[in-house]
Amino acid sequence: MKKNFNIAIVGLGQIGCYLLNELNTKKNDILIKTGKKINIVAISAKNKNKKRQFRINKKIFYTNPLKIIKEKKIDILIEAIGSSDGMSKKIVEIALKNKIHVVTPNKALISKHGDYLAKLAEVNKVNLEFEASVGGGIPILRTIKESLATNKIKKVYGILNGTCNYILSEMEETKDSFANVLSRAQKLGYAEPVNPKLDLNGYDALAKIKILSSLAFNNKISKSINLMEGIENIENKDFEIVDQLNYKIKLLGITELINNQLFERVHPCLVKKNTYIGNVNGVMNAVILKGTPVGESVLQGEGAGPGPTSSALMSDLLSILRGNIKYPFGINDKRRKKIKTYDVNKYLNSLYVRLEVKDKPGVLSIITKQLAKYNISVQRLIQIPDHKRKTASIVIITHEANEKNSKICFKSINRNKNILKAPVLIRLF
Amino acid sequence: MKKNFNIAIVGLGQIGCYLLNELNTKKNDILIKTGKKINIVAISAKNKNKKRQFRINKKIFYTNPLKIIKEKKIDILIEAIGSSDGMSKKIVEIALKNKIHVVTPNKALISKHGDYLAKLAEVNKVNLEFEASVGGGIPILRTIKESLATNKIKKVYGILNGTCNYILSEMEETKDSFANVLSRAQKLGYAEPVNPKLDLNGYDALAKIKILSSLAFNNKISKSINLMEGIENIENKDFEIVDQLNYKIKLLGITELINNQLFERVHPCLVKKNTYIGNVNGVMNAVILKGTPVGESVLQGEGAGPGPTSSALMSDLLSILRGNIKYPFGINDKRRKKIKTYDVNKYLNSLYVRLEVKDKPGVLSIITKQLAKYNISVQRLIQIPDHKRKTASIVIITHEANEKNSKICFKSINRNKNILKAPVLIRLF
Repeated sequence: MKKNFNIAIVGLGQIGCYLLNELNTKKNDILIKTGKKINIVAISAKNKNKKRQFRINKKIFYTNPLKIIKEKKIDILIEAIGSSDGMSKKIVEIALKNKIHVVTPNKALISKHGDYLAKLAEVNKVNLEFEASVGGGIPILRTIKESLATNKIKKVYGILNGTCNYILSEMEETKDSFANVLSRAQKLGYAEPVNPKLDLNGYDALAKIKILSSLAFNNKISKSINLMEGIENIENKDFEIVDQLNYKIKLLGITELINNQLFERVHPCLVKKNTYIGNVNGVMNAVILKGTPVGESVLQGEGAGPGPTSSALMSDLLSILRGNIKYPFGINDKRRKKIKTYDVNKYLNSLYVRLEVKDKPGVLSIITKQLAKYNISVQRLIQIPDHKRKTASIVIITHEANEKNSKICFKSINRNKNILKAPVLIRLF
Repeated sequence: MKKNFNIAIVGLGQIGCYLLNELNTKKNDILIKTGKKINIVAISAKNKNKKRQFRINKKIFYTNPLKIIKEKKIDILIEAIGSSDGMSKKIVEIALKNKIHVVTPNKALISKHGDYLAKLAEVNKVNLEFEASVGGGIPILRTIKESLATNKIKKVYGILNGTCNYILSEMEETKDSFANVLSRAQKLGYAEPVNPKLDLNGYDALAKIKILSSLAFNNKISKSINLMEGIENIENKDFEIVDQLNYKIKLLGITELINNQLFERVHPCLVKKNTYIGNVNGVMNAVILKGTPVGESVLQGEGAGPGPTSSALMSDLLSILRGNIKYPFGINDKRRKKIKTYDVNKYLNSLYVRLEVKDKPGVLSIITKQLAKYNISVQRLIQIPDHKRKTASIVIITHEANEKNSKICFKSINRNKNILKAPVLIRLF
């Protein structure tokens, strides 16, 4: 068996750089644990002279990563550029075709091209490892693929986006506005400085849910977006109200099979204060998994940042060094099924809806009439007047309502001129 | 590479039987995930005709498991007898010597003879897998060995005994006595029906802590018992008092390195109500791990029962089928160190102490005098009189006190004739 492995790292941002340093300092550890020697023979990034947290060896630096494949004998490539297409996809594709193992934390890439790349890896008999793509330091993918391999998994859900969880926790605790908390999160490095949209609108969590589904249910990665709602519209007012109702607000990603149809969703949820998931705060991530015979498993840990991410990348690397050749998604590509998507319009769900209305007679009656028309029954209704502005907040918690009906209903309510802005909608978990 | 694997199961209690049924029903699953065919060629237990939950094939039944090794060609042996010595040790030993992989949930065996058996496995180039020995369905051992392989782990702690956690949770919730709750736990199958002592006195949790230490710190399994206290003396009174102080009582297992010395301990702890660990209730187990660079990782799941245990046994089995040959303790036996044991007498710890005393003048002064003599300062003192009995409970929460001093101090206090029974001592976490 091979004793020496040549490694290339492509992408030297926060994560690439941290990992490079880890590899340099832990060569001996790796030798002890796997019996294999690693040599970092190439590193690559756009800018050779950018200021970086750790020193890089400029003698092995490439501006064009494609050159590495041509010029060096590489065994393992670590892709840490992080986009879903472009050079990220290109370099991974070429590496796999050249029988080079690939390790990546790139959820955008895997959730978009994972099926194709997994097939490439299988054909070329190399590993494609992406533990770091979901949940940072939480070993959730390996747990599903290996530790729970023969369990029948019914549902996987959790807090998968540290940025959103930080913002929600901070808004709740400090009573500061969304905008202020976001800008603080950006300063602390918890949110993208330029365009944090993909975190805030639920897209990032959905990419992770898609990867989790495909491992839990052995399906090809779904292409559709069934239900994706972000946290951008949530205001301090909502935290005040739900606090009184004994709830917390969390952005959850959820995937489950309903009548053998795949229902993937990401949206803010009201969760009871005394539940486990209601108490996962800050940048922490948590995944809860229900399976037979294992029962309920919970994994919690730091969901992002170069430390936890490097820990996951290292575990992938060691798995390759140990010669643990595996199907990227746990089973042979040919056995992975396409699962029909659940029709979200059929979904029954209790809703928290906050409407901002003009405070004048008749408004409430308009709203309740519409609710009755669409067969939505009210579990609780709270009206909070703002006498200064002559407006009121009307908060409605519905009984289980049909998704299609509630969509049409609140659209029609929103058209009324007494409704001052689009309703804030949070689903009960 | 080998395509067919012959399997023998020795021990057909709850776990052995459940696993046998899982294997029989999931042969195809296993083939899909690993490409390997399994054949169960032998099963063994003392009593062939005992009533069992699942049907067994009596044609492959052996009363003497040693005969299996002589008569059949076995690739993997599953030991599910469960004792630390006797036939458990004998059959595992012979199997490894015959180059047969071994899978076992037997924490008593591994915590006592794990070093010797791991060496045997390494010499014979087969696997010795024991994921199910700690935390049932929680994949904590694989997580340390693989997912966190290059992390520097500082501390591992958690709730490792479902029996104790169930009893403590129930006593707190129902206000029922220890004896009553224990007998309920026995009826529900959560506690050993005949001799539950090894669960209640902390021995079971300590065996698991010893296995966790050796994986986290790469040391040989420690032979000493440093600090082991059970839950047998805790009374309902204690739950009432600590509830007012905003605490819960949990039996924790803790292992950490203090100045490069190994400090393993199991004892009841007062944990704050709003902490994660304070809210792990019933038969659930939870493990918290602190490492660099991963940060804090939490794993929670069902800690016992045939379902979760089988899930873990299956993951071990699949690991072997995939050809993932590994050192049983993550690194080569020769590299595993002996780590010096931390001197518990040096331990600084805040204590909750409840003394039952005769309610008469001067008693409190005797106690406080002794505390002062041994340099133990009081953070809080509560005296609860029982006028009917003319007794009182005196509860003391100390500031950090030296273990040796507090041991001598409370021994000397206990000798006083006004102290009615041995103090109840719970450590603050």
